[in-house]
Amino acid sequence: MFEFTVLATCGRARAGILRTPHGDLPTPVYVPVGTQATVKTMTPRDLSELGATLVLANTYHLYLRPGGELIARLGGLHRFMGWPGPILTDSGGYQVFSLKALRKVDDDGVTFRSHLDGSTHRFTPEKVVAIQEQLGPDIGMCLDECAPPLDHAYNEQALARTHAWAERCRAAHRRADQALFGIVQGGVFPDLREQSARFITSLDFPGHAIGGLSVGESKEQTYTTLDRMDACLPQDKPRYLMGVGTAQDFIEGIARGVDIFDCVLPTRLARHGAALIPNTQYQNGRLNLRNAQYAEDEKPIEEGCTCYTCQTFTRAYLRHLLVAGEILGLHLLSIHNLHFLLDLMRRIRASILDGTFEQLAAAYR
Amino acid sequence: MFEFTVLATCGRARAGILRTPHGDLPTPVYVPVGTQATVKTMTPRDLSELGATLVLANTYHLYLRPGGELIARLGGLHRFMGWPGPILTDSGGYQVFSLKALRKVDDDGVTFRSHLDGSTHRFTPEKVVAIQEQLGPDIGMCLDECAPPLDHAYNEQALARTHAWAERCRAAHRRADQALFGIVQGGVFPDLREQSARFITSLDFPGHAIGGLSVGESKEQTYTTLDRMDACLPQDKPRYLMGVGTAQDFIEGIARGVDIFDCVLPTRLARHGAALIPNTQYQNGRLNLRNAQYAEDEKPIEEGCTCYTCQTFTRAYLRHLLVAGEILGLHLLSIHNLHFLLDLMRRIRASILDGTFEQLAAAYR
Repeated sequence: MFEFTVLATCGRARAGILRTPHGDLPTPVYVPVGTQATVKTMTPRDLSELGATLVLANTYHLYLRPGGELIARLGGLHRFMGWPGPILTDSGGYQVFSLKALRKVDDDGVTFRSHLDGSTHRFTPEKVVAIQEQLGPDIGMCLDECAPPLDHAYNEQALARTHAWAERCRAAHRRADQALFGIVQGGVFPDLREQSARFITSLDFPGHAIGGLSVGESKEQTYTTLDRMDACLPQDKPRYLMGVGTAQDFIEGIARGVDIFDCVLPTRLARHGAALIPNTQYQNGRLNLRNAQYAEDEKPIEEGCTCYTCQTFTRAYLRHLLVAGEILGLHLLSIHNLHFLLDLMRRIRASILDGTFEQLAAAYR
Repeated sequence: MFEFTVLATCGRARAGILRTPHGDLPTPVYVPVGTQATVKTMTPRDLSELGATLVLANTYHLYLRPGGELIARLGGLHRFMGWPGPILTDSGGYQVFSLKALRKVDDDGVTFRSHLDGSTHRFTPEKVVAIQEQLGPDIGMCLDECAPPLDHAYNEQALARTHAWAERCRAAHRRADQALFGIVQGGVFPDLREQSARFITSLDFPGHAIGGLSVGESKEQTYTTLDRMDACLPQDKPRYLMGVGTAQDFIEGIARGVDIFDCVLPTRLARHGAALIPNTQYQNGRLNLRNAQYAEDEKPIEEGCTCYTCQTFTRAYLRHLLVAGEILGLHLLSIHNLHFLLDLMRRIRASILDGTFEQLAAAYR
């Protein structure tokens, strides 16, 4: 269970397989985000057809509504949301710490108010492990504290908590059919990142997440930190870069040994009427389909794209749906945007397997 | 083109085939409504999978946005919305007359203000034929005036217009690949209905619509009027009962010789969190899935239902999606509700073909 095999490398990029109770997971992998136990507008069947393999759900949201106990009584997340493949949950910590004015952290845990009804709740390491064991994903996460990436003092203090909490999560974790990943923090500071990697890897988790990146630091700082993480984390366990997900981020992360990425970008952009397209000098990788210039545009979103949306509909029709406030527009854009990242990931993996990753990466740089 | 063949009858119920440029249409048929060139939340592929054969789009809405000229330049509605099967449009008249305070009718046509931006527009018989020829459906409708069903004087006056407009629509109609249906009006009044049927059928349209029902009269009045229509309209042409669509309405309409029904009920109910289920004494044919009683209900919406939603998801999950405001909930309910009516129609047709319609109908009475 949770055996990780690296099949090929290309520089530091790795193509592998992670075994899970709900199927073998080819890596590198892009993980669509299903915050409330649904990837917005998509059926599980739609996701399968797009080739999604692993889906993320948010512990914070599901804990508040409909509740971990309820999902447990209904047989767990897989059955609840009708997704037969592997599922990953976060710890809920990131959402709680994002509440800012509504939460108060101490060394034992964090007290917060629900964004839904203002009711008071408390997460401790033991509690988030227990909730995730109720939800029943294949992969769960330790509770951590994500500090502002450029504040050394704050990161030092947060790191002490993150490490103590990782130990407590590990001790509390019971389900053998669930992998609990440790999370390395430390902002952009080499000393803290190394210290964190040393401590977290000493706890012998089956996989490691890299937290606290893409939250305000520069791209250069992100990449330098990933370089350091690659040197510090064991090669024989999967690495998960949390919350990161543009095409460029995938390329640069994979070039630095990352295996797993999640990001809400495809579905969030869809809700804003934007489609992902290959980077060009002029369009910066996004097409805003609400623009009047597409009103009579008979082209698909992306020429040559094999997704259902591009095979079936013109930009003109998609613009009409968006302008008319039709839900189908969001769904069709979500299909394209998810396909865009999932297909890129498949091509990246194939290029690692056949030794051409550097050529593919060059096209995105 | 537009040949109509009655294959079997069972009492006055008919099972037939209507030939159209985009395929042969088995009748009786339920027509999902795609107001703005989309059946809400459904892809054309979803509709095909549910066995939808004919789809309706609204001339009023598409005329205002994105406009008939634009759809014509993009190759017509079939191409625009990616629906390869037959399409039916209404004349736009029903929407315009529903605007009440925003419209003014005269013998030549009707002037109205757009509900979108208040701009002024005018529909004449010639104009609605021209717009429908731009949209390019297989079946279009004459402009008519739908009067309150119980007001004899109003109906008498409206009928004169409806008849004059039918003649003008027929004269204006050019496209041989499009069938223009005449509409019989006259409220619940036998004299007016007979007069209308006599006049409209004299114009030799390829099909007849029955307008002005299910707009305020009693069920008994609806059925009595349908009985009369069945006696007055030619047997060898299809009959379309506009805007009518509960299970019971189908049964009673088909028992009185109706072939085509359209109704927004399945998708509209879905937006209110309601699912269609077989009539029972206690539940009145609808399940309000937002109710707390379904929070842990592991049953599908309808036991034994073969739709994707019922085959995959529990009431508890659907309730969660609705309460959490997730679009997927509306989509999954739309799938079930459309399946419910489309499947009922398939079973009705099969029962006419094998002579058991009366037994099936009895279960709905």
